Amino acid sequence: MKEQLRVGILGLGVVGSGSVKVLAEQQAKIKEQTGVEVSIVKALIRPGEDKEAFAKEFQLTLTTELSEIVEDPSLDAVIELIGKIHPAKEFITAALENGKHVVTANKDLMAQHGVELVEIAKANNVSLFYEASVAGGIPILRTLTANYLADEITNIRGIVNGTTNYMLTKMLEDGTSYEEALAQAQELGFAESDPTNDVDGIDAAYKMVILTQFAYGMDVALIDLEIQGIRGLSDQDVAQAQAFGYEIKLIGESVKTAGTVNVSVGPVLVPQTHALASIKNEYNGVFINSTGIGQSMFYGPGAGSLPTATSVISDLVAIAKNERLGISAPQFNEYRRPQALTPDEQVIASYYLAVTGIGQEDLQTILQNETVTAKEVVDTNGRIVVLTAPINRLQLAAVEEAVANKGTLERRMRVMEA
Amino acid sequence: MKEQLRVGILGLGVVGSGSVKVLAEQQAKIKEQTGVEVSIVKALIRPGEDKEAFAKEFQLTLTTELSEIVEDPSLDAVIELIGKIHPAKEFITAALENGKHVVTANKDLMAQHGVELVEIAKANNVSLFYEASVAGGIPILRTLTANYLADEITNIRGIVNGTTNYMLTKMLEDGTSYEEALAQAQELGFAESDPTNDVDGIDAAYKMVILTQFAYGMDVALIDLEIQGIRGLSDQDVAQAQAFGYEIKLIGESVKTAGTVNVSVGPVLVPQTHALASIKNEYNGVFINSTGIGQSMFYGPGAGSLPTATSVISDLVAIAKNERLGISAPQFNEYRRPQALTPDEQVIASYYLAVTGIGQEDLQTILQNETVTAKEVVDTNGRIVVLTAPINRLQLAAVEEAVANKGTLERRMRVMEA
Ligand SMILES: NC(=O)c1ccc[n+]([C@@H]2O[C@H](COP(=O)([O-])OP(=O)(O)OC[C@H]3O[C@@H](n4cnc5c(N)ncnc54)[C@H](OP(=O)(O)O)[C@@H]3O)[C@@H](O)[C@H]2O)c1
Ligand SMILES: NC(=O)c1ccc[n+]([C@@H]2O[C@H](COP(=O)([O-])OP(=O)(O)OC[C@H]3O[C@@H](n4cnc5c(N)ncnc54)[C@H](OP(=O)(O)O)[C@@H]3O)[C@@H](O)[C@H]2O)c1
Repeated sequence: MKEQLRVGILGLGVVGSGSVKVLAEQQAKIKEQTGVEVSIVKALIRPGEDKEAFAKEFQLTLTTELSEIVEDPSLDAVIELIGKIHPAKEFITAALENGKHVVTANKDLMAQHGVELVEIAKANNVSLFYEASVAGGIPILRTLTANYLADEITNIRGIVNGTTNYMLTKMLEDGTSYEEALAQAQELGFAESDPTNDVDGIDAAYKMVILTQFAYGMDVALIDLEIQGIRGLSDQDVAQAQAFGYEIKLIGESVKTAGTVNVSVGPVLVPQTHALASIKNEYNGVFINSTGIGQSMFYGPGAGSLPTATSVISDLVAIAKNERLGISAPQFNEYRRPQALTPDEQVIASYYLAVTGIGQEDLQTILQNETVTAKEVVDTNGRIVVLTAPINRLQLAAVEEAVANKGTLERRMRVMEA
Repeated sequence: MKEQLRVGILGLGVVGSGSVKVLAEQQAKIKEQTGVEVSIVKALIRPGEDKEAFAKEFQLTLTTELSEIVEDPSLDAVIELIGKIHPAKEFITAALENGKHVVTANKDLMAQHGVELVEIAKANNVSLFYEASVAGGIPILRTLTANYLADEITNIRGIVNGTTNYMLTKMLEDGTSYEEALAQAQELGFAESDPTNDVDGIDAAYKMVILTQFAYGMDVALIDLEIQGIRGLSDQDVAQAQAFGYEIKLIGESVKTAGTVNVSVGPVLVPQTHALASIKNEYNGVFINSTGIGQSMFYGPGAGSLPTATSVISDLVAIAKNERLGISAPQFNEYRRPQALTPDEQVIASYYLAVTGIGQEDLQTILQNETVTAKEVVDTNGRIVVLTAPINRLQLAAVEEAVANKGTLERRMRVMEA
């Protein structure tokens, strides 16, 4: 019966320092409820980083040597919060191989190398938990494993990137331009100095990869996803979508059809009456459809120091409980199915297409050739916007190619059914 | 390492038969992921109930003798789905005392005798789980224990009764009368033949008692709650609330202030822009505010055979996992704090008051005497409606008494801040 859990932390940035603070505040409650005294006692920082005052306040030993943490036999677990792939992957591997449980919020890493790292954790009989990697403060991963095991998910979709949702909210509500909205998000600390992964949909794609593993047991790679970002989204498209009765949201979708999955990320026209349209600013929301429970939604902060740190510490508490019970390191997600992607002709959706450099008649001919019905056509000074009836991806590709031969496809977005 | 979990079920009604079906469908997936073959093999029915065909389809042995289940040494767990207090309490006690884990969806029982039953479970080293007792398909209890242990909840409120929410939706959207809406809810099977507990707010109060235990560790009794139902809510009030910019919802609230709690259930004026206002029909939604995560919301079906049954089976899966790991029966909620209720003068809210038999001037005098500010006053043929500024419960009680002396207080409802 273990009554202490001593922890080392890698990185004292936004989430790292938040985790130290949250644990300090909740330590007594955790001890009372789990019987385990959990404490973060050592932190890895970069040479030259000034964290003396912080370390003193929270009684941390600082080090710039990884081995001082992963090879310290008095430590039971390691929290990784430096982010990115390298050297985070090597650091986590070293921690696992030294028999430390690991908690991380690193979606880039878990989406790309999660399967490999979980194998290393298993081989070393330790746990690797990463609840905070998807939708910050929303406990969506643990919910999927604990509450959907006796159910069958058919569809999981949501807003899983706080930065772009903040930007889109400003663009929709205040008419802020794309560039201005991005600058605001950076100022508020939502977007990183290099916001590429956010605005290009890559960050959301990482999260959809992880959600797909938990929902269907299937391991998909980024290359299997259809990914579009919101880079350069025009005020015109935002206004036109609203005129049609929709809001534009960056939506991740993972849909199961007859044993196959289709995973995509992109700006989507969401009906103004749909609950996803009402998720504002940096908040995230995940909708799940399943055969047993039906429709559910989980909503909460998608990022931020405290919400993400609280999620990190919850993972640590799970480890403390397991250690206390003497359980040999369970893994987060044991669901595994062979990967099977939905063929293009079975991926059906309606689309918003904005086209320039091509006449209305020519465009109509292209659509007719591919048996695509246009439900709406709006021509604004030669920029033609079409809302199609549901079509498959082969039809879409053919239309895109034909349009590109004669003019320019300025924007293509999926339309969500009401 | 236990690889079988044999289960007996008490009651084959709406949720009982649903549970048998859900398990039959998910048995293979559960086995694959937990390594345990979970099966319901025996069912208690009433003498004379005709369940032969059902029993045959799902390979159940039927019995009308409780002892055949609770004293059967080959059974590991018992699911109780007969409902109400007696004999459910005695049946569960017998099961626990015979060393069976128990799963139940019985909120009446868990709210009133949960603490006692959990003690019996502990004494017999078995688990007692009841996720389905609150908000049917929403995994709110497990979320509270797993994800809020390292956080501090300040406020939990929501729509936790599907029947009344269905009725209010019909009244608000279609102008259906109270009586008609109730008849529809009964027809659709949401409301029971005796809908007293639903419309009087008792069912919601049971759930708020359980949520309060999980959120704050505090055990409150029904008598500690302020409970109001929607019985006889008039079309006039519904329309007047809408004119003020609100929808009427039956809301349960459990609020922590300086270490004390106030728990209430009643019709509340919810701003039309608030997410709670958009929860329709039989759906439930629970909002949590906490110092770490901030604001979160969990939304899903509040009742119904399949959602509730899926939740029951999830509890069974948790037991199967624990048995497999050889863990000695953890309990659901280990959080315990001495109960402390918020004093009346610290319970602050704005109110909607509908008054008859009293003149506007007299009413204004009463309000002034108690230093209550009226933000809105509407007089419709002598039925006066007032929206007050925030006041405490002593002020409210004084106003109510003074009004009762001169006329009639037709309706009093809390107003939720935007
Ligand atoms: N921020 C959020 O809201 C949020 C939400 C969910 C998940 N996450 C994830 O949480 C992780 C941390 O994010 P964050 O926002 O806390 O980032 P951050 O503020 O940039 O923190 C990372 C910290 O690690 C330090 N670091 C980097 N490489 C290091 C090394 N080799 N040795 C020692 N220290 C090193 C950084 O120092 P320098 O500044 O000197 O590089 C920085 O202090 C990322 O995986 C991120 O994706 C963040
Ligand atoms: N329905 C929902 O959506 C829902 C949602 C959440 C929680 N719950 C809870 O789940 C429980 C079951 O609800 P339900 O809707 O399934 O009720 P139900 O349809 O009335 O089912 C109860 C069944 O138990 C039988 N029963 C009662 N006493 C019995 C006894 N002594 N011995 C054997 N059988 C007995 C009843 O038979 P008779 O009909 O002959 O009495 C009936 O078949 C309740 O605690 C309820 O509060 C229900």
